[in-house]
Amino acid sequence: MKKLEFFFDLSSPYSYLAATQMKPMAARHGAELVWKPMVLGAVFKATGNDMPARVAHKARWMGNDLARWAEHYGVAWRWSSHFPVNAIKAMRLILVDDAKAADVTLAAFSALWADDRDITTPDELSRIAERGGLEPAAALQAIETPAIKDRLRANTDEAIARGAFGAPTMFVGDEMHWGNDRLHFVEAALRRQ
Amino acid sequence: MKKLEFFFDLSSPYSYLAATQMKPMAARHGAELVWKPMVLGAVFKATGNDMPARVAHKARWMGNDLARWAEHYGVAWRWSSHFPVNAIKAMRLILVDDAKAADVTLAAFSALWADDRDITTPDELSRIAERGGLEPAAALQAIETPAIKDRLRANTDEAIARGAFGAPTMFVGDEMHWGNDRLHFVEAALRRQ
Repeated sequence: MKKLEFFFDLSSPYSYLAATQMKPMAARHGAELVWKPMVLGAVFKATGNDMPARVAHKARWMGNDLARWAEHYGVAWRWSSHFPVNAIKAMRLILVDDAKAADVTLAAFSALWADDRDITTPDELSRIAERGGLEPAAALQAIETPAIKDRLRANTDEAIARGAFGAPTMFVGDEMHWGNDRLHFVEAALRRQ
Repeated sequence: MKKLEFFFDLSSPYSYLAATQMKPMAARHGAELVWKPMVLGAVFKATGNDMPARVAHKARWMGNDLARWAEHYGVAWRWSSHFPVNAIKAMRLILVDDAKAADVTLAAFSALWADDRDITTPDELSRIAERGGLEPAAALQAIETPAIKDRLRANTDEAIARGAFGAPTMFVGDEMHWGNDRLHFVEAALRRQ
């Protein structure tokens, strides 16, 4: 079966934009879609990369560019007043139940990048869990367990080992694509696979 | 009249790829196309940005990504054995005669990024001048004059003042787009203008 692996950090706005396109893209090619949250800060540190918004001119352009992509896709987006946000607990929620990963991911992305909610609080984490189909109290306990913490670390290590340096990063087999602006190449790779 | 301003550095491979698309794009919208060579190193220094290839993982991905874009456009491309190249003299050639700017630019880009030639030598500069429709001996004298040197500096200063941080950078009016991967947004801006 074709497989599309989507590595992302919830705190990355371009990851949000790409995430809104993943389910339809995988469906068009009958591909299995694997949601792989990773800690982007650790990827930057391991590879010597840095936040694009560190360059002031780039940050200004990014605000406009992100708005243009959101309009292009027809999805809600606004700059988060909580940025840069520590999304680690929310990303662990995605790893509680693989069958719910898509719904939890999209609920968390919307909370942060469409509705400007603070995704670090227990109340908001509960709300995301619930919208994603998890039992909130159990999910909030699960994200404090070593098993779930280790899965997020393992995803991050895997991304680095496979050559990632930013987010989103998509794999079709061993072919790696970086960026919301490369979805046409991802689509071509799925077509060829 | 609609206007499309294309800021680029010859040493930037993504600038080469975008340059191959500029004339047809401008023609589709009846827009005046203005070729604006600039010194990317100075833009990086002024804005705190850096070469993408500085990050080893990104450099590896870039090699594949550039090849995919070249195939997508159907243009020749190979990694230059002369990279990073000092393209300042070749960029000054573009500024000798505005009526020849397009031809000189495309001749220089092809020499570097399709034919792997060393664009820093007097012989190759003469060849680029000739292929671009300039009288080579006069052109090679012109690029040592303060007037031409100043024009390249002025382009660079203008790009920085208008918010650029990388190459290629395209303006449609005041709307700025960065990157070969944003040509669809440039096209949309030309359509709206």
